[in-house]
Amino acid sequence: MESLEARILKDGYVLGENILKVDSFLTHQVDLHLMKEIGDVFAKKFRDAGITKVVTIEASGIAPALYTADALGVPMIFAKKSKNITMNEGILTAEVFSFTKQVTNTVSIASKYLSEKDKVLIVDDFLANGQAAKGLVEIVEQAGAKVEAVGIVIEKSFQEGRGLLEEAGIPVFSLARLERFENGKVVFKEADL
Amino acid sequence: MESLEARILKDGYVLGENILKVDSFLTHQVDLHLMKEIGDVFAKKFRDAGITKVVTIEASGIAPALYTADALGVPMIFAKKSKNITMNEGILTAEVFSFTKQVTNTVSIASKYLSEKDKVLIVDDFLANGQAAKGLVEIVEQAGAKVEAVGIVIEKSFQEGRGLLEEAGIPVFSLARLERFENGKVVFKEADL
Repeated sequence: MESLEARILKDGYVLGENILKVDSFLTHQVDLHLMKEIGDVFAKKFRDAGITKVVTIEASGIAPALYTADALGVPMIFAKKSKNITMNEGILTAEVFSFTKQVTNTVSIASKYLSEKDKVLIVDDFLANGQAAKGLVEIVEQAGAKVEAVGIVIEKSFQEGRGLLEEAGIPVFSLARLERFENGKVVFKEADL
Repeated sequence: MESLEARILKDGYVLGENILKVDSFLTHQVDLHLMKEIGDVFAKKFRDAGITKVVTIEASGIAPALYTADALGVPMIFAKKSKNITMNEGILTAEVFSFTKQVTNTVSIASKYLSEKDKVLIVDDFLANGQAAKGLVEIVEQAGAKVEAVGIVIEKSFQEGRGLLEEAGIPVFSLARLERFENGKVVFKEADL
């Protein structure tokens, strides 16, 4: 997605060895025009795939997932990262380790919102180690639903997430793929969409 | 907002003494049609108020805040609830106690995304004790920006949040106001919008 790559080059900020900050348009302040474009690109790809639900994980995945669900005309579900006293029965869970935050979270979705009739598109802002996406795949499969694909806004192609998902038979479609960082600049691989 | 009240009566679920679960359309699974309507109602109210940013807090506030920002044509910023290694300088913070989750979070927004030129509409899914909204007001005011108003999807009018904000001179506009629960059913007060 060219406009996304251009935006990353313009406003993204490389921090240390392997962190790209995009908090001016995706992960903290959110640019709605860009989110709509992202939603439209994913929706165009999956228009005829019979998707019934878009699933993501709080919090930065919510914006791109919402606009994708919106463009596809289906509900969006965001998995919860922590237990909540209002959510205490009928939940599907997976353990997810966050390398960024250095904590393990029990990620959960209420079982009543997914069934074996569902075809799910998982959408997330970043794919790096693949732990979050893998946890979401586990949860969707626990419900007997089918994961059609994983749609990613920014993939760190030098980390193992994509390989992990593809080994499990899950197709991955990324709008921007970071091959490496070179003198504080991003070098892209060819994106999927 | 009549369609919201109707949806609460249809799909909301009263749990115990003072909890309303709306996870089928707002706080877990998200209904995009309803979010658009919510965004449009807030945007209509604040169309001429010169709003430059919509601010919310992760995670359930993001969907209504996004569609409000979208309808107003301004960026949305979501405050973070936990520290992140990619966010380490230039942050504005406030301490927020969550009665639902029984934890105190240091809520933060990067200072570069708010300035004294900003007129902010704060949007959140629920207003109960008012701790989250009060924390967001503190952060916006630390930046020297002006809080124009707080827009709430569902207000628990039997708790102190609204009074707390109004005492601080912040106008509150709620789309649905819960007066009380009676035999497991919601009784509404007249809403603001």
